[in-house]
Amino acid sequence: MSMNNLGIVKRNIQRADPEAVTQLARFGSATVHEAMGRVGLMQPYMRPIYPGARLCGTAVTVLLHPGDNWMMHVAAEQIRPGDLVVAAVSAPCTDGFFGDLLATSFRAQGAGGLIIDAGVRDVKDLTEMGFPVWSKAISAKGTIKATLGSVNIPVVCAGALVNPGDVVLADDDGVVVVPAAIAQQAADAAQAREDNEAAKREKLASGVLGLDMYNMRGPLEKAGLKYID
Amino acid sequence: MSMNNLGIVKRNIQRADPEAVTQLARFGSATVHEAMGRVGLMQPYMRPIYPGARLCGTAVTVLLHPGDNWMMHVAAEQIRPGDLVVAAVSAPCTDGFFGDLLATSFRAQGAGGLIIDAGVRDVKDLTEMGFPVWSKAISAKGTIKATLGSVNIPVVCAGALVNPGDVVLADDDGVVVVPAAIAQQAADAAQAREDNEAAKREKLASGVLGLDMYNMRGPLEKAGLKYID
Amino acid sequence: MSMNNLGIVKRNIQRADPEAVTQLARFGSATVHEAMGRVGLMQPYMRPIYPGARLCGTAVTVLLHPGDNWMMHVAAEQIRPGDLVVAAVSAPCTDGFFGDLLATSFRAQGAGGLIIDAGVRDVKDLTEMGFPVWSKAISAKGTIKATLGSVNIPVVCAGALVNPGDVVLADDDGVVVVPAAIAQQAADAAQAREDNEAAKREKLASGVLGLDMYNMRGPLEKAGLKYID
Amino acid sequence: MSMNNLGIVKRNIQRADPEAVTQLARFGSATVHEAMGRVGLMQPYMRPIYPGARLCGTAVTVLLHPGDNWMMHVAAEQIRPGDLVVAAVSAPCTDGFFGDLLATSFRAQGAGGLIIDAGVRDVKDLTEMGFPVWSKAISAKGTIKATLGSVNIPVVCAGALVNPGDVVLADDDGVVVVPAAIAQQAADAAQAREDNEAAKREKLASGVLGLDMYNMRGPLEKAGLKYID
Amino acid sequence: MSMNNLGIVKRNIQRADPEAVTQLARFGSATVHEAMGRVGLMQPYMRPIYPGARLCGTAVTVLLHPGDNWMMHVAAEQIRPGDLVVAAVSAPCTDGFFGDLLATSFRAQGAGGLIIDAGVRDVKDLTEMGFPVWSKAISAKGTIKATLGSVNIPVVCAGALVNPGDVVLADDDGVVVVPAAIAQQAADAAQAREDNEAAKREKLASGVLGLDMYNMRGPLEKAGLKYID
Amino acid sequence: MSMNNLGIVKRNIQRADPEAVTQLARFGSATVHEAMGRVGLMQPYMRPIYPGARLCGTAVTVLLHPGDNWMMHVAAEQIRPGDLVVAAVSAPCTDGFFGDLLATSFRAQGAGGLIIDAGVRDVKDLTEMGFPVWSKAISAKGTIKATLGSVNIPVVCAGALVNPGDVVLADDDGVVVVPAAIAQQAADAAQAREDNEAAKREKLASGVLGLDMYNMRGPLEKAGLKYID
Repeated sequence: MSMNNLGIVKRNIQRADPEAVTQLARFGSATVHEAMGRVGLMQPYMRPIYPGARLCGTAVTVLLHPGDNWMMHVAAEQIRPGDLVVAAVSAPCTDGFFGDLLATSFRAQGAGGLIIDAGVRDVKDLTEMGFPVWSKAISAKGTIKATLGSVNIPVVCAGALVNPGDVVLADDDGVVVVPAAIAQQAADAAQAREDNEAAKREKLASGVLGLDMYNMRGPLEKAGLKYID
Repeated sequence: MSMNNLGIVKRNIQRADPEAVTQLARFGSATVHEAMGRVGLMQPYMRPIYPGARLCGTAVTVLLHPGDNWMMHVAAEQIRPGDLVVAAVSAPCTDGFFGDLLATSFRAQGAGGLIIDAGVRDVKDLTEMGFPVWSKAISAKGTIKATLGSVNIPVVCAGALVNPGDVVLADDDGVVVVPAAIAQQAADAAQAREDNEAAKREKLASGVLGLDMYNMRGPLEKAGLKYID
Repeated sequence: MSMNNLGIVKRNIQRADPEAVTQLARFGSATVHEAMGRVGLMQPYMRPIYPGARLCGTAVTVLLHPGDNWMMHVAAEQIRPGDLVVAAVSAPCTDGFFGDLLATSFRAQGAGGLIIDAGVRDVKDLTEMGFPVWSKAISAKGTIKATLGSVNIPVVCAGALVNPGDVVLADDDGVVVVPAAIAQQAADAAQAREDNEAAKREKLASGVLGLDMYNMRGPLEKAGLKYID
Repeated sequence: MSMNNLGIVKRNIQRADPEAVTQLARFGSATVHEAMGRVGLMQPYMRPIYPGARLCGTAVTVLLHPGDNWMMHVAAEQIRPGDLVVAAVSAPCTDGFFGDLLATSFRAQGAGGLIIDAGVRDVKDLTEMGFPVWSKAISAKGTIKATLGSVNIPVVCAGALVNPGDVVLADDDGVVVVPAAIAQQAADAAQAREDNEAAKREKLASGVLGLDMYNMRGPLEKAGLKYID
Repeated sequence: MSMNNLGIVKRNIQRADPEAVTQLARFGSATVHEAMGRVGLMQPYMRPIYPGARLCGTAVTVLLHPGDNWMMHVAAEQIRPGDLVVAAVSAPCTDGFFGDLLATSFRAQGAGGLIIDAGVRDVKDLTEMGFPVWSKAISAKGTIKATLGSVNIPVVCAGALVNPGDVVLADDDGVVVVPAAIAQQAADAAQAREDNEAAKREKLASGVLGLDMYNMRGPLEKAGLKYID
Repeated sequence: MSMNNLGIVKRNIQRADPEAVTQLARFGSATVHEAMGRVGLMQPYMRPIYPGARLCGTAVTVLLHPGDNWMMHVAAEQIRPGDLVVAAVSAPCTDGFFGDLLATSFRAQGAGGLIIDAGVRDVKDLTEMGFPVWSKAISAKGTIKATLGSVNIPVVCAGALVNPGDVVLADDDGVVVVPAAIAQQAADAAQAREDNEAAKREKLASGVLGLDMYNMRGPLEKAGLKYID
């Protein structure tokens, strides 16, 4: 076996519980990331190709090399309905590794969208298809098919570790990764946070200050805050 | 008193004349910045969270520390109708210091929007609320409430000095700061520029060249411009 | 004559064949760039000021200096219907060299849009006018008119060489430059690529894998790809 | 008088107390910034042109426009021994505004060095002269002399507000600004911090842990820290 | 137990075989990364604080939050001779989390150096101590001690996954991570590469071309390379 | 023949006059760039791998693709004594395309150094060899040998057009390109500038102000400069 799993495709992966995925899909990335203790976020340079895009599913992972998208086709075969694809590159690259043909193929296999730490192209077509992509760049630059990477190994994408089968949730605020093993726990914690928010929102809208609602005046005074005129 | 106003909230600030603010609100940021002599702009990395956003108001300023939004709640109490909040951070940070709950609170207190040299989250909700924000980043990353900053002290936000009470005007082109003391003067100068533009636009639209309309041919020749075939 | 053509305006330029331009206008930037062998792209930091913008035309080129847009007015006079303007700057600069007045003038002379390796302003007006611009930045920062540059000399814009008269094609994916001499050849090659794509898209949509459609299984196995469970 | 002090040279400025400057010069930028409550730092992109550079003096400030260094010569006349020059630009620019001729002139007038939120050139000569510069970029790109800025007005340089006469202290770690009015107070606080450090360093070097020296174990346990095997 | 190991310190970690670490320490980061199949590198923005720095050891990992270095003290206690510390942050931050006091403590516990995806300060002192650090930034900006992170959990540092106990090798070319389980295998492969290089270097130095030494002329011709005059 | 010269090696190139190259080698990049009218500079992100590096020679150009250095070996054969290599990439890439083996080969063929708009590795070895390289990045990331590019075609490197045979001059301030056809003219203009500087430097060192030496007081007053107390 090669070191570091290069040239490997793992066929059987342990996907997160579908019920937990369905529950997580109802929340925003900010809520889920808070619910997990403020971890699991990809870097904020990952942006959706169109506003309002939303995506939640289980990860098929792929490791690419700069300028080479060969493994995208290998990844396509591993997609099951409810999956999305998370693509990492072994060095920084903005090339357009993905366009409307691959999107057509990914969708046909059941993928809901793509998260890629590199560039994407055909964004007009992808937008019309309603195929959501979060990427580091948009670039018409094409790629070749010459080097082996791997599929369904653990990858680091935009600063976050993604294991195949993890839940990935993406919206306008960013992309958050929920390890498969804690998907239900994260969904429960997110629900608890959200239950809490409606009442708070109403209070704040009525003019109550966070200072009072959260009882911050005491701690602020203790910390030394001074009001002057 | 601590050095550099840390841990201070100034309650009474001198806001720019409301009439001047109303007049300035009619112009674009480019016009106002030109009218002031091409100064007062924040860095161009400050972008609105949705296209077409516009904002003009008097500044309540807040100085935050990286990863800590405690002072946002302190700032909320200092907002008066017609204000907006300008948030600076003591070191570069892209965390999401602000979301829909704080926006609800800021709006309830009368704020028109937010200018923040850091990240913002819940952008979908903010867009639906029509609560305009100009920021350096969009990020789901949450913050803590542990360190004192200050409210209504002079701050540097995205490269521009903002004193509490200054007029801040933001649109698709960027964010410009007008010191309170010269708000009316800036409004007058902006008006003078704009009076001038309609006639120019018409001439240019009819095919007259800027070369002729601005009498540039002489100066260009003197500077040594050569036409070749 | 000065070295390097500074202070020069070339009046007669060899524009690409209009028929080839018309043909190229039907394709996307990704298709054309692939058709030319994956070259000719500007850097991916060049972005349209509004989504869905499209532009194809022959280049009038202009070399500017940082903070100075004097030569834009000189360029305006050289525009012919079917042209677009490609603006390069002699050092990195994000100032807003171009706004709605210049757009009005450029359009009156027949220009379809602007490609500028710097900043642009009045983006709301430009969007309402439907005047497409691809730029490195959006900035309200104005410029002066003091230094000679040149018009219709070869320029490097966002990493791509543009000769006056070259075809430039821009869309959501980026900006590609087609040398005038090979415009028809590029159009033919793009057509050949596109003819090919409809059938492929249909196959992929039906669930056929790229692995099979492109006969990749053999080469992947030879390269050492291993499937594990 | 023009708005925002454009085209102004202030001749008489209130420089910080020389004794306080001498005291501050003994400390590092990190110590002084901590002593002031973790504020007053320029952005970390400001780097010395050679390692080991150190500078402490009172600020003569200058506001430049992109690509134009005319006001540097105006600033030279305002330099007094013990000063340094702080140069801001009205929009982002990496041009080389300063080289060995200006350094020769600045030094002849008594300046100890330069802090510039833009580019510098002739860095080999400046290094040989031992003339320290902190800058955003190194660039051979020259500038013109065509537009008025101002000298000795408040400027924002690399994110920090600098008033003429303020103390600026720069070393390998960055650049910190101490308002003239609190120079002595900052020097005292820095001394207090440093008095404290020698003993701490010795303890840590002997193997005592910060956990024990700072009594962190209790607070960490209270915060919920768990040790596992 | 909290999700995602927040607030956890793992005391017993499986360090890579010391003999393999010793062997790996002889190679450059480029050689080791090639030997592993061109993976395992941190992003190239990670730079040593002084030229010529070299470091190889087993990783004690720490996850920090922006602006907060509390866990560095917790990490210090877990250091064993031959270790180095790898510090990740939960969101992008350039603050100076580490200076000469912590370096004194880390060294006293046996650490050879630090790899941190954030800022560092006191770089002059660290350089004089010969304590090597690779970082994303240099910044005098200090941090607070208020939020729990974790020690010796898997972290993503500058784009690379690091498990506690992994071998990390850093030099002027960058930072490479070797999973503990394949340390010996990687050392052997690196040795094989290096055995090969001396003979190649000699040949190339004598004027033999890589085209001939690597037998590239055939493949290049087959790929379509054309020589013209 | 392929479009855009892909897969082409031009063997006979017109190198600049060696006498002009020798003369240009005596000047700094800033002087030469000014002498040509402030054009011809590469972007300031191009930095030497060690301080004090200097290089002047005639360009052998090479166009690479991201992650692929195959054509470097093809370029090696085209090097003649007095040349240097200028390497461009068809899309942004920071991989380490070049290390000590290639440097050994390039030097054996007579090359003085390398200018590359991408990454380089083995920088410690290159520094010890005294083989100067200007690059965008330093990265241990290796490359493959799979795709054709071209040698000795016009390339855009870091924003500057370089034709094979052009003079390229690089030092601590940056990299400037002098078209072969104007090499002597540029050398003469650079000499004229330098003749001028010694006298100026002496005057400025004696305390004469640039304001007086350049007769700027009148123009400044005319432009509206005001002195206040």
